[in-house]
Amino acid sequence: MRPFNLEYKSLREILLNHELASLGDSYVNFLYSLAMSKRRGQPVGIKVSSRILAEALKRAGLRTLLPRRTDRHTQADAVEALVVYAWVEDVVNIQEGVSLLMDYEDAVEAFSTLLSTIARKMKLRGRTSVT
Amino acid sequence: MRPFNLEYKSLREILLNHELASLGDSYVNFLYSLAMSKRRGQPVGIKVSSRILAEALKRAGLRTLLPRRTDRHTQADAVEALVVYAWVEDVVNIQEGVSLLMDYEDAVEAFSTLLSTIARKMKLRGRTSVT
Repeated sequence: MRPFNLEYKSLREILLNHELASLGDSYVNFLYSLAMSKRRGQPVGIKVSSRILAEALKRAGLRTLLPRRTDRHTQADAVEALVVYAWVEDVVNIQEGVSLLMDYEDAVEAFSTLLSTIARKMKLRGRTSVT
Repeated sequence: MRPFNLEYKSLREILLNHELASLGDSYVNFLYSLAMSKRRGQPVGIKVSSRILAEALKRAGLRTLLPRRTDRHTQADAVEALVVYAWVEDVVNIQEGVSLLMDYEDAVEAFSTLLSTIARKMKLRGRTSVT
């Protein structure tokens, strides 16, 4: 589903989009809560911290796309923007996202794997230049 | 997608499930943010207040299923539990939810319509007794 038109020329542009980050905030929490619910076999709600998301961005090698002085909160926003972008553009749907995230005990590892997967799939599609 | 097994005998039981409410919190915000994003034509993130959800529960005629002294926060939890239950059980999927919510300017009206739709569809399926 595309609730709005997205036109981005680069991954960097997506990462720095505040509106997408704003929408992505609830999506990231929902997706991770679903993954942990599936892992535990019962519903649970989790708020993913900025620290975890910022660390995952770094580990996925995407931190370098942001300006050097970007603070942790903005780094986390970048993750939220990219993850929801991937859902809107059907790069990684909810089921795939949950499957991926639930495989990891460690949340940073879970999100860095998700981010790497999204970046790789976007590159394969050639929709955006991954720079 | 069913991330866990749900076995509920009644609508009341769903409304009072804290774990479902915990998962539903991010889902409700995500769904409403999507609906408003679609309405405005650009991504936006919205946190739906307890006041709005509690009022919608009352307007949908479901408030009476909860104990009389239930506070507003618990009433909002009940909405979050039911809305995410409906998604997990594929009573109302994301697309349908967004279509429904985006039709209303007023958030209370939007959610009371969503709740009524969920209750009606569950009754039609006969999966749970609506009492």
